[in-house]
Amino acid sequence: MEHNINKHISGRFNQELEDVRNHVLSMGGLVEQQLNSALDAVSKNDAVLAQKVRENDYKVNAMEVSIDEDCTRIIAKRQPAASDLRLVIAIAKTIADLERIGDEAKRIAKVALDSFTKDQQDLLVNIENMGRQVSKMLHDVLDAFARMDVQRAFEVHKEDAKVDREYEAITRQIMTYMMEDPRSIPKIMDLVWSVRSLERIGDRCQNIAEYVIYFVNGKDIRHTSQEDIEKITVVIRITRK
Amino acid sequence: MEHNINKHISGRFNQELEDVRNHVLSMGGLVEQQLNSALDAVSKNDAVLAQKVRENDYKVNAMEVSIDEDCTRIIAKRQPAASDLRLVIAIAKTIADLERIGDEAKRIAKVALDSFTKDQQDLLVNIENMGRQVSKMLHDVLDAFARMDVQRAFEVHKEDAKVDREYEAITRQIMTYMMEDPRSIPKIMDLVWSVRSLERIGDRCQNIAEYVIYFVNGKDIRHTSQEDIEKITVVIRITRK
Repeated sequence: MEHNINKHISGRFNQELEDVRNHVLSMGGLVEQQLNSALDAVSKNDAVLAQKVRENDYKVNAMEVSIDEDCTRIIAKRQPAASDLRLVIAIAKTIADLERIGDEAKRIAKVALDSFTKDQQDLLVNIENMGRQVSKMLHDVLDAFARMDVQRAFEVHKEDAKVDREYEAITRQIMTYMMEDPRSIPKIMDLVWSVRSLERIGDRCQNIAEYVIYFVNGKDIRHTSQEDIEKITVVIRITRK
Repeated sequence: MEHNINKHISGRFNQELEDVRNHVLSMGGLVEQQLNSALDAVSKNDAVLAQKVRENDYKVNAMEVSIDEDCTRIIAKRQPAASDLRLVIAIAKTIADLERIGDEAKRIAKVALDSFTKDQQDLLVNIENMGRQVSKMLHDVLDAFARMDVQRAFEVHKEDAKVDREYEAITRQIMTYMMEDPRSIPKIMDLVWSVRSLERIGDRCQNIAEYVIYFVNGKDIRHTSQEDIEKITVVIRITRK
């Protein structure tokens, strides 16, 4: 179900809100590209690409600061109410999570600077798979944000449980590896951090999904159980029909 | 230098802003208590206290949601401008970081459920020291927030570099330990996570320090170098004299 975003941004500051929304989508696109480049750099052991990811992080930071200022200016000048205010708040929170996802991508890129033995490559393959899963989650939640699609946001929200299970499994595998080859520990710890970073990105995508749901239905669902969230989105689906 | 907070919360919604500020301080007090209890639980290997920390986390979450709603209501009803708006924004961001600090305290408390050998106790002592350092940082930044004291906020901001160095040193020590006693890896990994949690709490205290500086001088200093921040705070100090 797609929410009619235009209804919410009518009125005289239509254009301003539309602009800031577009900036968020550009920022989201950049962060997605940063994450994918970091994953590519790791899988191809490409130190040049990894360095590019690290250098480009300042662009993500600059976009966050700029959009944050836009949000503050809109609140101060336009004094938005109801759903317009919820949109500005959802945007302000979303960009904070996007910026942190950018930081995690930078951390992941670091792993591309290490070189791994054939045995260790097996660990890398699993991390890459988890990486693609998380990258898809980011793509989907940005899509949900672009359309303010609460159903899609809910699906991303559920997806995080799978990422968490993947995280547990890979962490166990890595620990076993370290126990069998203790000399590799310092290098393998870099893999531990990158798996942790991926797990955190999943959490942040889940946060963004919550902001979309908050914007559409006006309810803060943080710290709410999955079942209760499901009930809420069903109610929204019915009432919007 | 103490900033005159009263100047900023004059006007008809004085009381509302004062109330929400007090709620933030209560929330900060609770989070500080959670962190200290988690550290006590670890150092005394006290599973009951650890469980209490885990159970009390919902209170932190509930306070965040409630204060967040207060902020949204104030923006919608009172349409604050200039420094009043900056205060509301600084509050909304501060409580998000406090909530995450609560989550990290919960993670740290988990370590209290493990039991450690005499050798491993040495690692614990260093983690405890780092914990007290971070706890002091949290205390100081809450104090800076309460007084809107930009000088104090700046000192906390600088403190984070020390915590980061401590983190690096302890992580190296833990890795050496794991290499010497690979069978201990699964248990020692819990220590790795708790050191990481402490490092993250340091980052979040630094964030809160930035919000205080943002509120007082109206400038967003995120992603700004330490030297540049120092220049800014010196300018503020001079202009307020």
